Amino acid sequence: MISVVILGAGNVATHLFKAFKTTETINVVQWYNRNSDSLNTYKNEVAITDDLSQLAEADVYIVAVSDDAVKGLTKKLPFENRLVVHTSGTVKISDIDKKNRQGVFYPLQSFSKSAKLDFANVPICIEAIKSEDYHLLKDMAIAIGSPTKKVNTDQRKVLHLAAVFVNNFTNQLYRVAHEITESEGAEFDLLKPLILETAKKVQELSPYMAQTGPAKRNDKKTLNNHAKLLTNKHHKEIYDLLTKSIQHTHGRKKL
Amino acid sequence: MISVVILGAGNVATHLFKAFKTTETINVVQWYNRNSDSLNTYKNEVAITDDLSQLAEADVYIVAVSDDAVKGLTKKLPFENRLVVHTSGTVKISDIDKKNRQGVFYPLQSFSKSAKLDFANVPICIEAIKSEDYHLLKDMAIAIGSPTKKVNTDQRKVLHLAAVFVNNFTNQLYRVAHEITESEGAEFDLLKPLILETAKKVQELSPYMAQTGPAKRNDKKTLNNHAKLLTNKHHKEIYDLLTKSIQHTHGRKKL
Ligand SMILES: NC(=O)c1ccc[n+]([C@@H]2O[C@H](COP(=O)([O-])OP(=O)(O)OC[C@H]3O[C@@H](n4cnc5c(N)ncnc54)[C@H](OP(=O)(O)O)[C@@H]3O)[C@@H](O)[C@H]2O)c1
Ligand SMILES: NC(=O)c1ccc[n+]([C@@H]2O[C@H](COP(=O)([O-])OP(=O)(O)OC[C@H]3O[C@@H](n4cnc5c(N)ncnc54)[C@H](OP(=O)(O)O)[C@@H]3O)[C@@H](O)[C@H]2O)c1
Repeated sequence: MISVVILGAGNVATHLFKAFKTTETINVVQWYNRNSDSLNTYKNEVAITDDLSQLAEADVYIVAVSDDAVKGLTKKLPFENRLVVHTSGTVKISDIDKKNRQGVFYPLQSFSKSAKLDFANVPICIEAIKSEDYHLLKDMAIAIGSPTKKVNTDQRKVLHLAAVFVNNFTNQLYRVAHEITESEGAEFDLLKPLILETAKKVQELSPYMAQTGPAKRNDKKTLNNHAKLLTNKHHKEIYDLLTKSIQHTHGRKKL
Repeated sequence: MISVVILGAGNVATHLFKAFKTTETINVVQWYNRNSDSLNTYKNEVAITDDLSQLAEADVYIVAVSDDAVKGLTKKLPFENRLVVHTSGTVKISDIDKKNRQGVFYPLQSFSKSAKLDFANVPICIEAIKSEDYHLLKDMAIAIGSPTKKVNTDQRKVLHLAAVFVNNFTNQLYRVAHEITESEGAEFDLLKPLILETAKKVQELSPYMAQTGPAKRNDKKTLNNHAKLLTNKHHKEIYDLLTKSIQHTHGRKKL
């Protein structure tokens, strides 16, 4: 049995709590938040507290608070030489106060409180200084059904950066598509199957192999037609930059 | 029974042929290609020809050839007053020679010959001059299980443009993410569940509501960290433009 204390009551903390509860090998012994009101819903399922001096003993402390709060909170922990991990893609492992054993348990997904999430679809990127700690964190990820990967700090940071491209930026392209279709009273909904298919395609093929379309083919007629349709200057900027990017990748143009 | 002649032997023609074959209401009476060799695999399933003067009589002729070839090919058809449709997102309906009844049967998906495709995930955008023709095309789409939508030319064109954003451009963001992760020896594969989740999220939520991340939050610390990580000038250009775009959408910045 791995005993765990969770710190923080946000998206990640809540999803991890629920996932841990389903396992037979992880025991959440306590849940801390600076404001324990937000944990009230769970007070019959787990011991809750807002008092750091009352933290229970555990194998691992998961600090799932805002990035900026990790350093300060771990500094205030009233114990030492225990395993303390954060869940961030960007925070340095050394931001965890060094009186404890440092680690990272970074779930590479986009969490929101309402949406259900199967941890089979949440790769956990693990960083630890000590090999025993790495193995404990790995066992924890396996228990909730997550794929795991040992990463170093540089790798974790580029994964977080790349996640911004495939999540936030991709979503913004969906948004632009929404604006473009609405401008003519066409339905954005018609694009939804294509959106899904595009994401599914790169589950098997590399993005390089999956590429198609007028930019890759250098189909000047279609590119010109699109240029005429793009009345919004800002949409046109995105169109031009990503067209150039595709043509660069596929050997059609120097940047 | 709706009788159909397919013209062209590419991705769209082949997928439509296979889908029509599964129905009980559509009968593919003939398949034409300028080079009938590419149809040889199907010669036991359907009459094939490379001779326009031998085209059979049918309720509808589906011209699924390259955009640039639609006009010329429909001009050469040796009959008149029949329903002739193309399958393009960009070609004008009037590019179909006016001696026949013009229509459009535009499948809003990305086709490749190898990948299987369920037509339930292929919305068909229909345009027709005559109401009977519209209804026949709609019945055809329904027979293969596709959602349908009546669109006008302007709507079809913006849908095609928007499709470039959610398909080609999104795929290019995946490619950039691939380059970024590989540059540190991190695994692109770890991003695949996030890619899928991002696409799934907008099946229910609008892209506006689905947005998260450092650009939307205007999280300067993370934005600065990312700027430092972005060593490739071209990746940085994309990062900056899409960050600006998100901030504009979410009211943080004037463009
Ligand atoms: N959301 C995601 O998709 C995602 C994905 C992977 C990793 N992460 C990482 O996971 C961590 C948590 O993210 P989240 O999305 O769960 O955050 P969140 O939903 O915004 O919740 C933040 C939590 O941190 C607490 N907190 C904030 N400032 C604090 C402080 N100064 N002292 C103590 N507690 C403080 C908040 O307490 P109150 O309840 O009192 O406000 C809240 O419980 C972050 O490091 C984030 O980078 C997030
Ligand atoms: N692929 C997609 O994802 C997709 C999605 C929606 C709509 N569409 C539209 O569907 C249509 C067909 O696209 P596709 O992807 O199926 O094309 P494709 O795979 O490239 O096949 C093109 C077909 O057109 C024929 N063709 C080319 N030039 C011709 C000419 N001058 N005369 C007669 N036939 C000619 C080719 O004949 P040969 O076999 O002899 O070369 C081939 O059979 C296009 O209008 C396209 O815009 C495509």
